[in-house]
Amino acid sequence: MGETVEQSVAKHEPILNEETLKETLEDLRELIEQKADSFIRNILVNLHPADIAEIMRYLSEEERHYLFQILPKDVASEVLTELDQPVIDEILSDLNPKEISEVLTEMDSDDATDIISELPEQVAENVLSNISEEDRLEVEELLSHHSETAGGLMAKEFVAVNQNDTVDEAIQEIRKKAEEVEDVYNVYAVDEAGRLVGEIPLKNLILARPGSRVKDVMDTDIVTVYTDMDQEEVAKIVKKYDLVSVPVVDSEGRLVGRITIDDVIDVMEEEASEDITMMAGITETDIPETSPFKVSRSRLPWLLVAFGGEIISGYLMSRFQTSIAQLISVVFFVPLIMAVGGNVGNQAAVVVIRGLATGEIALVDTRRRLAHEFLVALLNGLFLGTLVFTISALWLHDPKLGLMIAISMIVVIENAAFLGALIPFLLKKIGIDPAVATSPFITTSNDIFGLLIYFSMVTIFLKFL
Amino acid sequence: MGETVEQSVAKHEPILNEETLKETLEDLRELIEQKADSFIRNILVNLHPADIAEIMRYLSEEERHYLFQILPKDVASEVLTELDQPVIDEILSDLNPKEISEVLTEMDSDDATDIISELPEQVAENVLSNISEEDRLEVEELLSHHSETAGGLMAKEFVAVNQNDTVDEAIQEIRKKAEEVEDVYNVYAVDEAGRLVGEIPLKNLILARPGSRVKDVMDTDIVTVYTDMDQEEVAKIVKKYDLVSVPVVDSEGRLVGRITIDDVIDVMEEEASEDITMMAGITETDIPETSPFKVSRSRLPWLLVAFGGEIISGYLMSRFQTSIAQLISVVFFVPLIMAVGGNVGNQAAVVVIRGLATGEIALVDTRRRLAHEFLVALLNGLFLGTLVFTISALWLHDPKLGLMIAISMIVVIENAAFLGALIPFLLKKIGIDPAVATSPFITTSNDIFGLLIYFSMVTIFLKFL
Repeated sequence: MGETVEQSVAKHEPILNEETLKETLEDLRELIEQKADSFIRNILVNLHPADIAEIMRYLSEEERHYLFQILPKDVASEVLTELDQPVIDEILSDLNPKEISEVLTEMDSDDATDIISELPEQVAENVLSNISEEDRLEVEELLSHHSETAGGLMAKEFVAVNQNDTVDEAIQEIRKKAEEVEDVYNVYAVDEAGRLVGEIPLKNLILARPGSRVKDVMDTDIVTVYTDMDQEEVAKIVKKYDLVSVPVVDSEGRLVGRITIDDVIDVMEEEASEDITMMAGITETDIPETSPFKVSRSRLPWLLVAFGGEIISGYLMSRFQTSIAQLISVVFFVPLIMAVGGNVGNQAAVVVIRGLATGEIALVDTRRRLAHEFLVALLNGLFLGTLVFTISALWLHDPKLGLMIAISMIVVIENAAFLGALIPFLLKKIGIDPAVATSPFITTSNDIFGLLIYFSMVTIFLKFL
Repeated sequence: MGETVEQSVAKHEPILNEETLKETLEDLRELIEQKADSFIRNILVNLHPADIAEIMRYLSEEERHYLFQILPKDVASEVLTELDQPVIDEILSDLNPKEISEVLTEMDSDDATDIISELPEQVAENVLSNISEEDRLEVEELLSHHSETAGGLMAKEFVAVNQNDTVDEAIQEIRKKAEEVEDVYNVYAVDEAGRLVGEIPLKNLILARPGSRVKDVMDTDIVTVYTDMDQEEVAKIVKKYDLVSVPVVDSEGRLVGRITIDDVIDVMEEEASEDITMMAGITETDIPETSPFKVSRSRLPWLLVAFGGEIISGYLMSRFQTSIAQLISVVFFVPLIMAVGGNVGNQAAVVVIRGLATGEIALVDTRRRLAHEFLVALLNGLFLGTLVFTISALWLHDPKLGLMIAISMIVVIENAAFLGALIPFLLKKIGIDPAVATSPFITTSNDIFGLLIYFSMVTIFLKFL
């Protein structure tokens, strides 16, 4: 008995940390090379599909294919849903439509739909013709929704009963769907027209008298989303109301699907990654391994924005050529002016962008936020201005020149903070994702404005002082 | 009947969008001014606590206090857990310890602990002496764990039974705890020593024969976390295995708490925000309204890094003063060299940082990733190099100078991509959050290296060509 306990406690541990991952990976590689299928099966049977998927990411293409074809169909289907798109494409390109449909049949409708939507049209049609009528209709319905909406996110697997049914009948319905619907958190109640009228958390179902009617024990005060709601909005709602699943209704209020928290978490991560990479000037999240040509093409547009902007900066500097020739030392502060302006602008922008994304800042906050950023920039400007005054006055032995540089820097900082905070609000207002605003856009425009301000001050200084 | 249905359908909609938020806000403001308490109560009774919390964020300090003292204690407690820390501090500073403890008594143990841990020590002690012995012991246990570990995240509210109990007894236990534990997803099974040996999802409990033993229907192959596991690790596990809650065990394997998905989502958002703001050079997430002095202080260190780095850049440029005086036009390309280097470095860094954070990239990928980034940078370098050659050769009427600038740019780009991708891996390896690596660190060091490379090339060019 004691031993059984020990065993199950041991099993509880998260199955892979970086070291066990490496070990298992090496074991599997060796066994794959020896084609020792039964040993491989022995290892795989103890692994969670999510762990198998993680291991697959590190295998070579041939090793991956070899391992995948050993997996039982139901495990293969779970592993597939955990993999990144380029790897999925690669694995499926090796299977014929019949084999693909066998794997998809084991999947939840939302995952199967995601995979089918990425297949070449011809293959997708072939696959669809190989799965059951019922599954095909579900997938076709899900395909009809835009992939980044609630309809594109939902699955057709849920438990629903008529509100006039009894609690006992609801339990029978769970039993009937037990295999199809893996995670049941709520039973949904609908009226004769299929419209969603309430839900019963399983806890309440367990505690209810078996004879009572569903409509007498259901919650009617529930949160639902419409099929055409943007997935980012769905994620915000799920987070705000602490839900683990949310029912999806069509425009008539009929229950058509259910979104579970694991898919919502994927959306949150996707949106966060999108924001982060977009801020660094990458149009597509290019983390998964794809060809360097593709990645280069996705990053180049943003580099070209910076390129164009800084050619303008250079051209503007050339207009101040006489001033520069007169006092070469002013160019030593060009990197400083550019960097401080860029960083201040980015700081202001990122806080606003992230706040708008998580809902902590709303459009109604615009004026308050700008005033706030203006004050923060003033404080930092005064501090850095004093510092640069001291350094430049000592370095160049010219306090008047130092004062000019310090004043320029304060103006540049205020300008950068103001633009950095304002631009995300403006983009949000006209319906563009504010995350596109930061570097290189904000940095580049701050460079242009910053150098213009700086060299104008230099010219005035040289003329009048 | 039809009307009832319509009503409940109407109630389903997410309760606040930006417009209804504004309207409700204005209504409440007016009513607060008129001290029309019963009208205010009528509005509040229909709102979800999460919506009340959102409204509170937009009220003035006095309005907020007025509204909070009208709320029933249980709603007040739910609203409080949804608010940001500065607002919580402000509201609680107006309450005496007895009032605070009344609100905390209604909360889950993890939320109560979070709030107590932020109170001034004297107040916290007073509050603790005012709550029940049982609650106090729970809070004191939770306070003993580091706040960013599984122990700091978990709550003491869960349902556990002995593995030898029957399914019927498990259901009785749920009934007993129904009020205390709001969301039950699993019943945990423990042995005589309190060690966790399995769990039963509610679905399986419903479908099990009432007389069967817990140990015969429980899953033993479950994922658990230890009290001292880092919260980021917990979030990764919950995400990887698609969990909605995870049991927490101590070093002896005894069940001591439960972490629910809503808290894990907060961790994920917190970590994403931390990464994003850190990348822009902000040490603390300063989205909530705090004093400009505090915000300025949190942003200044990063500006000083940039400041110091760019003073070094300026000093290096001054060492090339003779070259610059000889050929002033080379400084027109300083903004371009800096910006392209900075952007390329950031792109490479952000992809690695985000990949390491989500687990899509691991340390074992280092060499492959560096090679990948080197290739991408080479492609972008060749493209931008050709472009800058054409532009500068035409602009300055000197193809040889144009070629020098183009070659410098390619070298700068390769250097920036290499550093950008490498530094996050190095930081991760020595246990520092890689997110600190990006701007201003990477940008600033890329500026220094970039200008050094560029002006060295300029000097060689002037000497030999």
